[in-house]
Amino acid sequence: MLDQIDLNRSTKKRDYKERLPELQQRLYALEQTLLEARIPTLIIFEGWATTAKANAIGVLMRRLDPRGVRVHSITPPRTYEMQYPWLHRFWLKTPSYGQMSIFDRSWYRQVLAQRTHKRLTTAEWHRHCEDIVSFERQLASDGAVLLKFWLHISQQKQRYRLRRLEASRLTAWQVTDDDHWQNRHYRRVSDAIEDLMARTDTPYAPWIVLPATNKRYAHLTILETLINRLDARLGVQTTPYPPSEAPLDSNGFSFRRELMAAQDDAAAHRVKNYALTLPSSASITDATVAQLPSPGILRRVDLTRKLEDKKYERKLVRLQAKLHLLGYQVYQQKRPVVLVFEGWDAAGKGGAIQRITETIDPRSYTVHSISAPTGEDRAHHYLYRFWRRLPERGTIAIFDRSWYGRVLVERIEGFAHTNEWQRAYAEINEFERQLIEFGAIVCKFWLHISPEEQLRRFEERQNVPYKTWKLTEEDWRNREKWDAYEQATDEMLLRTSTPSAPWTIIEAEDKRFARIKVLRTVVKRLEADLGKVKL
Amino acid sequence: MLDQIDLNRSTKKRDYKERLPELQQRLYALEQTLLEARIPTLIIFEGWATTAKANAIGVLMRRLDPRGVRVHSITPPRTYEMQYPWLHRFWLKTPSYGQMSIFDRSWYRQVLAQRTHKRLTTAEWHRHCEDIVSFERQLASDGAVLLKFWLHISQQKQRYRLRRLEASRLTAWQVTDDDHWQNRHYRRVSDAIEDLMARTDTPYAPWIVLPATNKRYAHLTILETLINRLDARLGVQTTPYPPSEAPLDSNGFSFRRELMAAQDDAAAHRVKNYALTLPSSASITDATVAQLPSPGILRRVDLTRKLEDKKYERKLVRLQAKLHLLGYQVYQQKRPVVLVFEGWDAAGKGGAIQRITETIDPRSYTVHSISAPTGEDRAHHYLYRFWRRLPERGTIAIFDRSWYGRVLVERIEGFAHTNEWQRAYAEINEFERQLIEFGAIVCKFWLHISPEEQLRRFEERQNVPYKTWKLTEEDWRNREKWDAYEQATDEMLLRTSTPSAPWTIIEAEDKRFARIKVLRTVVKRLEADLGKVKL
Repeated sequence: MLDQIDLNRSTKKRDYKERLPELQQRLYALEQTLLEARIPTLIIFEGWATTAKANAIGVLMRRLDPRGVRVHSITPPRTYEMQYPWLHRFWLKTPSYGQMSIFDRSWYRQVLAQRTHKRLTTAEWHRHCEDIVSFERQLASDGAVLLKFWLHISQQKQRYRLRRLEASRLTAWQVTDDDHWQNRHYRRVSDAIEDLMARTDTPYAPWIVLPATNKRYAHLTILETLINRLDARLGVQTTPYPPSEAPLDSNGFSFRRELMAAQDDAAAHRVKNYALTLPSSASITDATVAQLPSPGILRRVDLTRKLEDKKYERKLVRLQAKLHLLGYQVYQQKRPVVLVFEGWDAAGKGGAIQRITETIDPRSYTVHSISAPTGEDRAHHYLYRFWRRLPERGTIAIFDRSWYGRVLVERIEGFAHTNEWQRAYAEINEFERQLIEFGAIVCKFWLHISPEEQLRRFEERQNVPYKTWKLTEEDWRNREKWDAYEQATDEMLLRTSTPSAPWTIIEAEDKRFARIKVLRTVVKRLEADLGKVKL
Repeated sequence: MLDQIDLNRSTKKRDYKERLPELQQRLYALEQTLLEARIPTLIIFEGWATTAKANAIGVLMRRLDPRGVRVHSITPPRTYEMQYPWLHRFWLKTPSYGQMSIFDRSWYRQVLAQRTHKRLTTAEWHRHCEDIVSFERQLASDGAVLLKFWLHISQQKQRYRLRRLEASRLTAWQVTDDDHWQNRHYRRVSDAIEDLMARTDTPYAPWIVLPATNKRYAHLTILETLINRLDARLGVQTTPYPPSEAPLDSNGFSFRRELMAAQDDAAAHRVKNYALTLPSSASITDATVAQLPSPGILRRVDLTRKLEDKKYERKLVRLQAKLHLLGYQVYQQKRPVVLVFEGWDAAGKGGAIQRITETIDPRSYTVHSISAPTGEDRAHHYLYRFWRRLPERGTIAIFDRSWYGRVLVERIEGFAHTNEWQRAYAEINEFERQLIEFGAIVCKFWLHISPEEQLRRFEERQNVPYKTWKLTEEDWRNREKWDAYEQATDEMLLRTSTPSAPWTIIEAEDKRFARIKVLRTVVKRLEADLGKVKL
């Protein structure tokens, strides 16, 4: 999903000059407060070569009292540092209570380098990730604030910057062989980063992927994110949460459950989407969730993509035939398959699913339409109902909406407390990891349309008699929260896309294009795991 | 450490009959409350064959409303269950909110069996343990109470029971080949269990090792432990904690830190043990910490063991000569060594350490005397100062008191909040695991004496002029908390002893015996890892 991030964001010089001093002043004030509260902070900068991490750190430090902050530049370990367990040198660099430590590269550097250069076995890689999670958890349990920035640019941009640096004798020395190696193996490194992030992204030490094409934008966003995070840690909240109407117990979980229990069973079948039964007053505003910078993934989706009728028919026939054969291979090779469909209301999930199901043996698949949990499901952990619905070996489970409801509708509508949906990213990653380790093939689709297209489809549904049932009042209400959903979706795509369980964004403005892309993706993925099929 | 548990505990029939109905009644009342509070409970019974887990479950269930509780008997997975990821069948058995699930064997059964039968690689074993931790954490985060009982008996007792069962035609069918296999490989299984427990023992899903020789004792203890735990979850606390004089912030960590910051630096050098600077009013009473049944390890130590002068001299010379050679091997083979000494005041830690240090090259070891943290150490995570003091490859670090202060003195004296010392067991296990994976050799000693012997030694120190400095007022005060320390030590020994970082209890009533046993243990352990040395 890293390749989908909007890297074109930028800030104008004038805005930058105006906002920067204000943010730096604010951070200075926070530095004093943290010192008094004896809260240690760790700010980690990782990222592609040529993203000028040192510059960003400079901007961060400018106004700070140097007595409260320390910068650690992490290079590969020295000989004497290799005399100790690998995290030893990082433990020594943890800040004192009240101090701030800024890491220019960190404990991630070496692990990532060793992994991409294939000097770590998979088991070692996993163990190192576990070590990191344990390290960060121990610090966070002790009261530390941790923030991990990944400064992100495209392969092209990196290549351009490397060339520009080399063009001048003043800067050519900065470029190393390793930088070139990284640029040539951009894809491989990118995959490793995605896997690393999914394994080490936690509510207490989140990863923030930062578009770093424009330095001004990156600098301001770093400052804003850091300030937001520290404010939250100190209990300063700009927007009140949870809403006062909805009391929470100290663990935060009775809230959702009470609400769900209060739901009238008779009314349950009326609502299409269970989140919508919550009083709208309790919904979270856009401002509350905008704690992390939006990666801008959806905004960049090219919605002009189309497919002509004729081409569509030809491709459809061919892909469906392949899928038919692959369905048999799924059965033969006893592999479970999980297909997840998420997307906007009226984005065409149903149609896309139908193009899959109509071509495979009906005994080999189940479609699960996920709406309000009822009965048993409502009385269990939110993942329980998906564990129950897992496909057995050799079969295909298709989820029309899924466990991702936790970080979409439940987040937006306040069904899940902030703690709950924030921890859900890690829980979902663990869940899918277990599926994959068992041998499952997992594809996840986000069907994307514009708000205008949605409106057009809603109106069509309203006017065409046999489509009316598809449209509810809640759909209209949902539309009003488009921005909040967009932010939540962006974050979800970024935090839960892994090389072995990737998200595919489907440009669904044109239904034909969408259906073909879904089919093509499924076929490609099945072929990669089960072997190519010939028509 | 499992082999050190007091398995002779028993309850008299009369007491049993008196207490049982009362506890069952109490549990019945709790069942109703849990239902109303919608808190799910998972009670897991694992243990040696012939410990009659079904009986224990029967006693637990007797008075419960059957609508609120379900028993799951876990057998090896059926063919259809193997069509899904391995935890699938356990997810399906998780209780609804407010329900109680009792597991007769559980997700641990198969992992343990596969490991002891060597059908799991080390990497797979670790991954399964991670899966379990993730599973239990997800349930606990969702509000569930988890309790894991290990019913424990000795190898002899098990063999006796197997024979007795086989002697009668009515019961012979109960004995399986696997039971005999387990009895024959008692040591191997025991090691696997210790490793498993260290990896899966968490504050939210603790292991409780239960002496199960006497069924009445086991039954009452199960009921008591369960009731205590549920009371705590429901916020019913029999003894108030934290003490009202010591306010805690919501995260519990400002407490310790404030106290430490408040410590007068000038006074710091006066106190031998930093915990003692806390006002005694804030100390925890015996009743508060007695939440888990005491494993009674220390009570069973044979303090009559002695060594004659002559024998002592002969053994000392021989062991020290070996250790001298092994010290050189440590350097040659570039292995780091960690020796931890814990024990009662005046138990003879200093003397034992001296017998080691006087025989090895002074350049190859460092002795760290751990008392009140000062300066930097006081301003960091409690493990920071031990990370700083790790031995480099090829050297030996000897800790006279150690990170275990967290679960001993800091626990007893209230320096660490309950959350903090409870999570410390897992943190310490993670810490030592990282040392061992790096290649370190770890030995941990608890030097044990009787309170009477301690008194004798204290008085000697008081009366012999050149020993007076060794005795402080705090030592006397410490004596008064003997029972609480004993309970904390027992729990520490049980929760942090692993096959690769085991605790050795030293019978230290006789100093000569103690010193020889320490030396012999170190020599044996070094020889196992570095190869035998010849004199």
